[in-house]
Amino acid sequence: MKLYGYWRSSATYRVRIALALKGLDYDYAPVNLLEGEQTSKAYLARNPHGLVPALETDDGAVLTQSLAIMEYLEEAFPAPPILPDDPVACANARAVAATLACEAQPFMNRRVQLFLKTDGGFDDEAMKAWLNRFPGGAMAAVEKMIAKTAGDYCIGDTPTMADCCLVPQMYGAMRFGIDVSGLKRMNEIYERCQTHPAFAKARPEIQPDAAGGS
Amino acid sequence: MKLYGYWRSSATYRVRIALALKGLDYDYAPVNLLEGEQTSKAYLARNPHGLVPALETDDGAVLTQSLAIMEYLEEAFPAPPILPDDPVACANARAVAATLACEAQPFMNRRVQLFLKTDGGFDDEAMKAWLNRFPGGAMAAVEKMIAKTAGDYCIGDTPTMADCCLVPQMYGAMRFGIDVSGLKRMNEIYERCQTHPAFAKARPEIQPDAAGGS
Repeated sequence: MKLYGYWRSSATYRVRIALALKGLDYDYAPVNLLEGEQTSKAYLARNPHGLVPALETDDGAVLTQSLAIMEYLEEAFPAPPILPDDPVACANARAVAATLACEAQPFMNRRVQLFLKTDGGFDDEAMKAWLNRFPGGAMAAVEKMIAKTAGDYCIGDTPTMADCCLVPQMYGAMRFGIDVSGLKRMNEIYERCQTHPAFAKARPEIQPDAAGGS
Repeated sequence: MKLYGYWRSSATYRVRIALALKGLDYDYAPVNLLEGEQTSKAYLARNPHGLVPALETDDGAVLTQSLAIMEYLEEAFPAPPILPDDPVACANARAVAATLACEAQPFMNRRVQLFLKTDGGFDDEAMKAWLNRFPGGAMAAVEKMIAKTAGDYCIGDTPTMADCCLVPQMYGAMRFGIDVSGLKRMNEIYERCQTHPAFAKARPEIQPDAAGGS
C-alpha cells in the first residue's frame, strides 16, 4: 500500500496511527501542502478534492477520507481490531471519531484558517475565539462523551478509531493555541498514547517529510 | 427506537433516510433548535455536545453523530444494506459520506453561520464566498468522485450511506443559496431520490415539527 500524506496533516496522522496499530507496512508518498502539491494534476487525478491523505491499495484502488480509509483497513485487516466488538461501544468509538473529524478538525484546517484571515479579515483575537468556540467546543464535548466510556483509552482499555482521531486533534489544537488544559481525560489518554509504540511510530516529527515551520 | 432531531437538520435528515431505507419504525422526539432545546439540561444529558440527532435504542443506549448512527443501523439491521459489499465500493460510499459530513455540512451549519455573521462580521457577500468556497468546493469534489462510481445513485444502482448524505446536503445548499447548477450528476441523483419512497418519507417538510421560517 502507498499512503499519500503530509507530516502535519491531522487526517494523515489518523491513518498512520491506524496502519501502525494493525502492524501494516506501507510506502509513504509525501504531498507538500505548503508548496501546493495537493492541487497538482497528478495528485488531483488520485483525489479530486485535493486533500490528504489518500491510500493506494495493492490492487491500485485509491481511497480517500481518513474515516473511510480506517473503516476499510478494519475490514480488510481485522486483527487487531480498532473498533470494539460490542455494538454500542463500537457506535461510541465512531461517535468520538466523527465528532473530532466533523465538528473539530474542519474548523482548524489550514486552508480554512487562511480564508478567515485573508478573505474574512479575522485578526488574532477573532481567530482565537473561532478556534476555542468550534474545535474547542467539540473537544470539550468529547471530554464529556468519554467520561462514561474511557479506560486507558477513549473506549475501554484498547486503542480504537476514537484514539486515532484524538491524538492528532490534541496535537493540532496545542499547535494552534487552543486551550486544552481543562480536558483532563483527553490529556491523560494523549500522554498514554505517546508511550504506545504504534502511536509513537505515527508521530509527525519523525516522518520523512517533517520539517521546521508550519 | 426514538430519534431526537430537528426537521431541517441535515444530520437528522440523513438518519431519517437510513431508517426509512431499512424500513425501521421509530418514535420521533423533536428538539427545537430555534428555541435552544438542544442546550436544555434534559437534552445535554443525552448528548453532551448539544447537537442533533441522537438515537435512543430499544435497550436505552443513546447514540450520537449521524455517521456513527448509520453504521450502527447497518450492523444491527443489515437488510437491506446501505453499504456495498465490495470493499472498494464500500470505501467509496463512505468517502462520499465523509466528504459531505466533514468538509461540506460543518461550514454551513446554522451555529457556524451565526458566529460568522455576528462575531465574525461577515456581510452577505463574505458569507456567499464562504459557502461557495467550502461547502460548495466539497460538493464539487463529490461530483468528480462519483463520476467513476455513480449509476442511478452515488455508488452503483442502489442507495447507500453516500445518498443518505447527498440529499440533505443538496437540500441545505439550495436553501442557503449555494450554486449547485453545475453539479449535473448530483442533481440527477437528488431528483431521482425525491421519487424513492424512503427518501420521500424522510423529507423535512413532512416531519411533525416542520414549520415555516428557518
